[in-house]
Amino acid sequence: TYSHLLLAGLGEDPGKVTVLVHSDVDLQPTNRKDVHSHVDLQSTRRKDDLSLLPWVHVVEAFQAIKQPLPVNLKFLVTVAEGTAWEGGGTLNFTCLLTSKKRFLSGVRYSCITLDRSPGTRFPCVIYGLRGLCYFTVEVTGADDPSHSDAHSGVYGGVLYEPMGDLLFLLNCLVDERGKILVPGVLDDVVRGEEPPSRDAEPDVEELRSTLAVPRLAHKEDSRRLLLHLAWLPSLTVHAVEGAWSGPGARTSVPLRVKGHFSVRLVPDQTPDKVCLRFIEYLNKVHRHFRRSPNAIRVELTSSARPWVQDPDDPHLGAAQRAVRTVLGGRPILTRAGGSSKMAAVLQRATGGSVVALPLDLDMGGLKVLAAYLHEVGQLDTNWH
Amino acid sequence: TYSHLLLAGLGEDPGKVTVLVHSDVDLQPTNRKDVHSHVDLQSTRRKDDLSLLPWVHVVEAFQAIKQPLPVNLKFLVTVAEGTAWEGGGTLNFTCLLTSKKRFLSGVRYSCITLDRSPGTRFPCVIYGLRGLCYFTVEVTGADDPSHSDAHSGVYGGVLYEPMGDLLFLLNCLVDERGKILVPGVLDDVVRGEEPPSRDAEPDVEELRSTLAVPRLAHKEDSRRLLLHLAWLPSLTVHAVEGAWSGPGARTSVPLRVKGHFSVRLVPDQTPDKVCLRFIEYLNKVHRHFRRSPNAIRVELTSSARPWVQDPDDPHLGAAQRAVRTVLGGRPILTRAGGSSKMAAVLQRATGGSVVALPLDLDMGGLKVLAAYLHEVGQLDTNWH
Repeated sequence: TYSHLLLAGLGEDPGKVTVLVHSDVDLQPTNRKDVHSHVDLQSTRRKDDLSLLPWVHVVEAFQAIKQPLPVNLKFLVTVAEGTAWEGGGTLNFTCLLTSKKRFLSGVRYSCITLDRSPGTRFPCVIYGLRGLCYFTVEVTGADDPSHSDAHSGVYGGVLYEPMGDLLFLLNCLVDERGKILVPGVLDDVVRGEEPPSRDAEPDVEELRSTLAVPRLAHKEDSRRLLLHLAWLPSLTVHAVEGAWSGPGARTSVPLRVKGHFSVRLVPDQTPDKVCLRFIEYLNKVHRHFRRSPNAIRVELTSSARPWVQDPDDPHLGAAQRAVRTVLGGRPILTRAGGSSKMAAVLQRATGGSVVALPLDLDMGGLKVLAAYLHEVGQLDTNWH
Repeated sequence: TYSHLLLAGLGEDPGKVTVLVHSDVDLQPTNRKDVHSHVDLQSTRRKDDLSLLPWVHVVEAFQAIKQPLPVNLKFLVTVAEGTAWEGGGTLNFTCLLTSKKRFLSGVRYSCITLDRSPGTRFPCVIYGLRGLCYFTVEVTGADDPSHSDAHSGVYGGVLYEPMGDLLFLLNCLVDERGKILVPGVLDDVVRGEEPPSRDAEPDVEELRSTLAVPRLAHKEDSRRLLLHLAWLPSLTVHAVEGAWSGPGARTSVPLRVKGHFSVRLVPDQTPDKVCLRFIEYLNKVHRHFRRSPNAIRVELTSSARPWVQDPDDPHLGAAQRAVRTVLGGRPILTRAGGSSKMAAVLQRATGGSVVALPLDLDMGGLKVLAAYLHEVGQLDTNWH
């Protein structure tokens, strides 16, 4: 996997507000051989890629009606190729921060677009996202990596089977209601904090039918569901990599297995601290409770800080007005459960405010972006 | 997957003993398009396929030296295509049993060849194999099978995640030392029974280094290791099928996951009874202890009865003499941990005795087979 960073600017009018637009282009592998040398927008097919093209169309729209852009625009495009979860892959953000003086100077407002709405039909503006720690835990039975498996008919019964250890470890992460069991991880979760009434509670029936599950957790109470969707951490085990993943039945004893899980974090939790707790916990459980001679290795393969913006920031008000102008009704401010590496990074790097707009093209997404630029252009230009 | 049964005979001399030879040809998918219409031995590359060709060579050898075969031979070839574990795939044995009168009449002795030696360097003759129950357990979150996954950023925290349920269930199968925790499953395991001294205890150091593991189970006591290798049941979790098995990290919540595990059985256990216990147990654990609203489905996808032969049967003595003639030393009689569907089936269908020869071509395997036919030819022809 590769990561690239593209920076671009449009306009340097000192009388205008400067808005930074972030988009993440994840190039999935295509048939094209030259994908590494060209950032070919046509080669990308992910819904996330909607985050860049609409901005191009909006700029073209202003040009078509011969109107000047109401703001100076800066584009920050992160390009990950066939990797990872949303938000910039393995990008090293140091390069961004060191170039801050030149590129980020004057940026007061940043906007990221999300392809996923936070599970509500209401038009909304997002002022917070959960962070993320993505872990792998590998259990290795054989010292020699070329020993990938044994045969259960020949050796079943005399081995400390790595799969058994992995199942035990993964089963110790959360209880049946999804509560994280790792000591200390929930210490920094502000207990009293609750979604204010502006955060829309999900429609339980709609949520259940979207997921097609028989029953949701937390007694299907809409307020508690909102809490667990965006205001509390969650943990998901994504996969167990074993010896074999094809069809049919094999009777091998995998001697090297790897579990994948991720934890969504909320403000006041930091990936560093959470990561340490998990590594410490899993090693302790393995050594003291499982007491298996197999080796384990816990790795943090990706992380993102949680992000939350002061909901009273005028920037969010401008975004809400833009949504209302286009879609009508009363757009809500809300926090969502997804993660974006760049939200917290931009907040820290610019010292300004960040807003996330869920971009639903069916719901007039392009017009919302144009209206957003218009509204932000009216804001105070006094900055620093 | 397809299964076929090939029957062939060579010689009908009433003055000779009739020996049935079983071999299992597992056709792995090849590049050839016509693999379904031809049983092409060259298209098979599995070590197991050694079980048929050597017999052909042995017959040719007798012909080359112009010696009559010392026995009447019957070939029973089971052909599975790209399936399952050893021993005949999804073959329906009814067809074998109903044709018993014609094809199996007069068969007193049956021989199966195994490509896997039971973990000992000593030449040996095998008089017992463990049985097998192969299970899958599927946990389904979404009612609608087209809902294959959700996104942990959007929905993490409000779902009863099927993976969590599956990990919990699989973790309840055995304890950390490999003891099966399912009530009743060990009831039929004869406790007092122990390997007699003729059964060779494994060389601990050799076993450990073959597997390249840091430590074996059961305190690395060679007698206890032998017990667990062949005289006691074992359970292995082979794989967890999740939503994704490719490289990289995905943050999906699989809504349909499936675990694969198998249980090796010992005499007095029957697949039917064991199967019922497992299905009952997993459903009970899920309903009463996990209390998740997700649906589970436990399936027995394959099974084999355990097989054990009276070690005093003269047939085994003949096989031992054959091994001694070719390889020297004192071949041991032993039981092994693998499984063969046909061993128990042939024992029941013929009413005669069955022997298994581990076929190591480096150790003069072909000569052993020829010597075996010679020795069996000397046995009493009075039968029925």
